[in-house]
Amino acid sequence: MAVYTLVEQDDLLEFLGAYDLGNVIAFKGIAEGVENSNFFLETDHGRYILTLYEKRVDPADLPFFIGLMDHLAAVGLPCPIPIRGNDGEPLRRLNDRPAAIISFLKGMSPQRPTVAHCSALGHALAQFHKAGADFEIKRPNSLSVKGWRGLLDATTHRADEVKPGLGEDLEAEYAELAAAWPQDLPQGVIHADMFPDNVFFIGEKLSGLIDFYFACNDSLAYDLAICINAWCFERDNSLNITKARALLTAYDSVRTLSAAERDALPLLARGASLRFLLTRLFDWLNHPEGALVTPKDPLEYWQRLRFHRGIEGASAYGLD
Amino acid sequence: MAVYTLVEQDDLLEFLGAYDLGNVIAFKGIAEGVENSNFFLETDHGRYILTLYEKRVDPADLPFFIGLMDHLAAVGLPCPIPIRGNDGEPLRRLNDRPAAIISFLKGMSPQRPTVAHCSALGHALAQFHKAGADFEIKRPNSLSVKGWRGLLDATTHRADEVKPGLGEDLEAEYAELAAAWPQDLPQGVIHADMFPDNVFFIGEKLSGLIDFYFACNDSLAYDLAICINAWCFERDNSLNITKARALLTAYDSVRTLSAAERDALPLLARGASLRFLLTRLFDWLNHPEGALVTPKDPLEYWQRLRFHRGIEGASAYGLD
Repeated sequence: MAVYTLVEQDDLLEFLGAYDLGNVIAFKGIAEGVENSNFFLETDHGRYILTLYEKRVDPADLPFFIGLMDHLAAVGLPCPIPIRGNDGEPLRRLNDRPAAIISFLKGMSPQRPTVAHCSALGHALAQFHKAGADFEIKRPNSLSVKGWRGLLDATTHRADEVKPGLGEDLEAEYAELAAAWPQDLPQGVIHADMFPDNVFFIGEKLSGLIDFYFACNDSLAYDLAICINAWCFERDNSLNITKARALLTAYDSVRTLSAAERDALPLLARGASLRFLLTRLFDWLNHPEGALVTPKDPLEYWQRLRFHRGIEGASAYGLD
Repeated sequence: MAVYTLVEQDDLLEFLGAYDLGNVIAFKGIAEGVENSNFFLETDHGRYILTLYEKRVDPADLPFFIGLMDHLAAVGLPCPIPIRGNDGEPLRRLNDRPAAIISFLKGMSPQRPTVAHCSALGHALAQFHKAGADFEIKRPNSLSVKGWRGLLDATTHRADEVKPGLGEDLEAEYAELAAAWPQDLPQGVIHADMFPDNVFFIGEKLSGLIDFYFACNDSLAYDLAICINAWCFERDNSLNITKARALLTAYDSVRTLSAAERDALPLLARGASLRFLLTRLFDWLNHPEGALVTPKDPLEYWQRLRFHRGIEGASAYGLD
């Protein structure tokens, strides 16, 4: 949640020379996205977001991300539309970084999602998955089982600083998940980071899906598992089954979940818990002392993980 | 340049219940101002900035800051207008902090000001000084001579970490300035932090003056000295006399500088250099390691200080 790169006015104006967007009316760094530097840009022609891709984003992935936004917006999903320059290109360089201008989406992230929000999310996620089916560029999920191994190696020797015994527990959990991880569920493009921060609403109407910079190809139901964790738990880390039911039934009404996907949900949700626990743990152990951004508590995800491990099946999420 | 406080949607909506601003359309943390948390807020009724006052701002000063914006906007200066709630109050609390909504101003800060920008600034600063004459609340300048003494005490013992001999040089400079500091120049409300960051332009037209949170009562010409330092030096720390002349002649055309003010300018500019050098030095020595915000180089202001010490008089700034 920070602007990493400052953009000078002269550099901005030179950059905008490649577009047909009129005169600049406002330009402000905004606290949106954690991987990149984002700016609110208003011109005579409208409102936009300018993104500078920082080093955590691999430039080789940018055609996937930009192409995906184009692809999804074209079928009517409320995603940002990449703006093309006069040369037809949506990507160029600014301040020695890859940069793109995308359309501005109205709306606000729900920090405390309601049942109605979860339902709207379920619809949109299923539409996203269906729309991604004919997107041609592929990107593997670097934060799936193999990626977790790397994160474990980087964190477990110090995990006990957070909670005694955590390192050993994580290794045991990983061993189980790696052995049982499903390989044959329906695949496609997933968002992989569909937290409330990345979804805008105006009232209860979903108005925007943003931040596609973890999107990749993986099991579609894994995306749903990520959303159960991110949207359906209360602040005391208990599952709100009404929210989970709303999310899953809305999803299922647009894209029917197979029996195998339903059966796999608790395992996928354990994996989704481990994935966010590990990246949070890494940030927790490695954040610079005194930095303005407080890292998120990794143990929230430990509690989610334990919940998913303790249930009998997807009926615990309210699925019939 | 950071959002310090996150605002939850529920808390925002409850807060907005005290206003008649319609429904929220967008809400984003923005990188504007260094003392407070600022948010871009759009509703059915228009666009606003929501400010949460963080602990570096004394709540007792808020009626001065809010009243000053009201006062200046009322006479047509392009300042933010504090928005009053249904109870008539412009100040209330959010997230346990004082908070206010002010109007949104279009425009962009010139990171590399032109001669035309300096001229527009000179006009606006003089109008600001004239308009402040009948503002009734007073606020002393805590960052004048007495404040410098406190900053010296907090920094000079470590100043040599930045440059060998700097601590001694700063003490000597302070002694000279404290002895010679003028007490009888025309007084009034000064902005005291009129850096390009705090002035918006659309093209060459000045469209906004923001961030009044250092404003106070002091010698008016001291404000002009701050602007010479902030607007008229090039990146190699040399004075651009064309810019200084444009700033000063535009100012003088709206509010005539007295002979005493002209004569005092080099001394005031030395003081203004010392003031920003000392706060930068404090931040440099005390910023948390690895923090996202890189502190500004205090030595830029040492070079400005030496320049002002070496000149014969205000003619070096292009004043006839």
